[in-house]
Amino acid sequence: MQKTIYLDNNATTQVSKEVLDEMLPFFSEKYGNASSMHTFGGQNKRVIETARAQTAKLVGANSANEIIFTAGGTEADNTAIFSAVNTQTGRNHIITSAVEHPAVLEPFKYLQSRGVKVDFIGVDKDGVFDMEQFKKVITDKTALVSTMWANSETGTLFPVKEIAEIAHAHGALFHTDAVQAAGKIPVSVTEINADMASFSSHKIHGPKGVGALYVKSGTRFLPYLIGGHQERNKRAGTENVPGIVGLGKAAELAPNSLKRTAQIAALRDHLEGELAKKIPDTKINGDVKNRLPNTSYISFGYVEGEAILLHLDRFGICASSGSACTSGSLEPSHVLRAMCVDYNFAHGSVRFSLSDRTTAEEIDYVIKTMPPVIEELRRISPFWKKNK
Amino acid sequence: MQKTIYLDNNATTQVSKEVLDEMLPFFSEKYGNASSMHTFGGQNKRVIETARAQTAKLVGANSANEIIFTAGGTEADNTAIFSAVNTQTGRNHIITSAVEHPAVLEPFKYLQSRGVKVDFIGVDKDGVFDMEQFKKVITDKTALVSTMWANSETGTLFPVKEIAEIAHAHGALFHTDAVQAAGKIPVSVTEINADMASFSSHKIHGPKGVGALYVKSGTRFLPYLIGGHQERNKRAGTENVPGIVGLGKAAELAPNSLKRTAQIAALRDHLEGELAKKIPDTKINGDVKNRLPNTSYISFGYVEGEAILLHLDRFGICASSGSACTSGSLEPSHVLRAMCVDYNFAHGSVRFSLSDRTTAEEIDYVIKTMPPVIEELRRISPFWKKNK
Repeated sequence: MQKTIYLDNNATTQVSKEVLDEMLPFFSEKYGNASSMHTFGGQNKRVIETARAQTAKLVGANSANEIIFTAGGTEADNTAIFSAVNTQTGRNHIITSAVEHPAVLEPFKYLQSRGVKVDFIGVDKDGVFDMEQFKKVITDKTALVSTMWANSETGTLFPVKEIAEIAHAHGALFHTDAVQAAGKIPVSVTEINADMASFSSHKIHGPKGVGALYVKSGTRFLPYLIGGHQERNKRAGTENVPGIVGLGKAAELAPNSLKRTAQIAALRDHLEGELAKKIPDTKINGDVKNRLPNTSYISFGYVEGEAILLHLDRFGICASSGSACTSGSLEPSHVLRAMCVDYNFAHGSVRFSLSDRTTAEEIDYVIKTMPPVIEELRRISPFWKKNK
Repeated sequence: MQKTIYLDNNATTQVSKEVLDEMLPFFSEKYGNASSMHTFGGQNKRVIETARAQTAKLVGANSANEIIFTAGGTEADNTAIFSAVNTQTGRNHIITSAVEHPAVLEPFKYLQSRGVKVDFIGVDKDGVFDMEQFKKVITDKTALVSTMWANSETGTLFPVKEIAEIAHAHGALFHTDAVQAAGKIPVSVTEINADMASFSSHKIHGPKGVGALYVKSGTRFLPYLIGGHQERNKRAGTENVPGIVGLGKAAELAPNSLKRTAQIAALRDHLEGELAKKIPDTKINGDVKNRLPNTSYISFGYVEGEAILLHLDRFGICASSGSACTSGSLEPSHVLRAMCVDYNFAHGSVRFSLSDRTTAEEIDYVIKTMPPVIEELRRISPFWKKNK
């Protein structure tokens, strides 16, 4: 069987062996309901609190009680946005960026359709947040500012601390979708002074189907899933004990990956440098001086990104043309459109996202495989011929 | 270590070995994102479709496309209720029963606080749905009728087919919380003609953190979690591949449990008969002629249910005083209150919920353990002394 070269870690990651080992007893042995009165179930309440403390530590929360477990990043984002709008009475304006994940963009569009005033802040050609536009549109009627910490496609980092400060100066809440940042760069919700922040387990080598929402102590909050008293009345639904345990363990292990940041960035830079050297008309998207160490978003002019991916797939290389959450669309990614990347380049974009498990051999294999793939595709591309 | 006698299967169940085995490869081996373009991720799309077909089959859906995977029963209930209210334009009235799970009651109370007219249909002393009251309050302005298929505490079955018929005659949608019914009695959403129905994996020996919402083809629907295009735009968020695979397998296996219904009911009846014989002032709650085969909800007069549970816990017996989702409250269960169970009995209620793994030895152990426990508690109970 062909070896898989997995360079799609911004889409999802491998569950670590230590994480899975930690989860296993909670499926068929210690399977009790954590909200039950009996010891068999109640003991699972304690392991959930351990996971809460582990998660709080990774994200820099002051207290474990500021962590609410959810079914993932999407639920955390949805919860934060609807909570802010419904608790910030008298304020009917919300702000986000044009390059957010759909789990943020869609609630914003929905609220816009329901009469809430919405501003989508643009980015420059490198994907950098337009701070001047932001300062212009925010008012004392702004309920919420929600921006991502790191862009999932380009890896570009947003000045979340500065954005939070400006939001607070206007009495607005600040939420950050930190799903792509956590585990890849050091994050501290306390240091940037976020009111809410979203995290996903499966992006940090934990299981799918579980995430966390940080809600700073004292922040007015309305739950999104309602019903039972779980999560101190902040998120209803039987606690996903194995999932939560897995997220906690992944959070505990994440600092080990962070120690290998320089090694990951070096591999990424090597990949980009060699591909740019070997393949004409390539362009690195994003703010190369200020982005996630693992992410490379390269445009190959005059070819189709989907075609490139199919070819790479034949060689066992897993990459992405953008976000897996927006796949199925033939439009170039909304991120590249917001960056006004030239159409001929935007369409031929491939995102490679590494992890600390990525090896030099894997990167060399991609460097060797890529040039003939692009060459072949360009040979049959009408756009390439027209432009050359 | 003391053996655990697990009689709390309405709270949660043990994940079957076959289910866990099926899930395991999807954590650390086939860990790709099901929405990814590459084969490594895309192959997980196929396993999700297998699980969808397995789930559709268990619940009697006509088509697998009528199944939407969620993070659990609560999300399924919330989604169904808010979808119905937001799509049934021009209708501002919703109906449920007074004995629903909090995941239904809380959205109803929330909508009531936002101006929606709400009726909570009562039950009689056996927990039987008040059909006359229902027929009286339903109008052509009713948007939704939502009732459970089986009560989680008493096991009492609701006449869902008849309720659906009446709802439809008035142009209302019918949703049923079938979380407790599935896997314990045969269910067919098609046969009862439900528009929507909620299911939970962890109640049928599948993993926690995953559930399903049945939405009949053609039913107007608005998603609750919004963002990416997953689940054909009906539920955003990276697919929880191992969880969904687990639910599918549990659904495939559930008919094996159903074959042992008579055996489970015989054990339950033996338990009830012996306890009633050995302990004076006991009362079986629920409609004993028409209830789940695995559920026994017994009131022991003049003692505290929580105290009974603590004593049973010392003997390794796991039971419940009501729903785990409402635990932490000192009030008697809302179900018993709706049934107008005498205060002195309501407080001393214990729910035993069996599974097809429950053995005759375990039941005999409970029959032996229980009488001295109640006797001891009554000896120190002021209510007992006063009444005897």
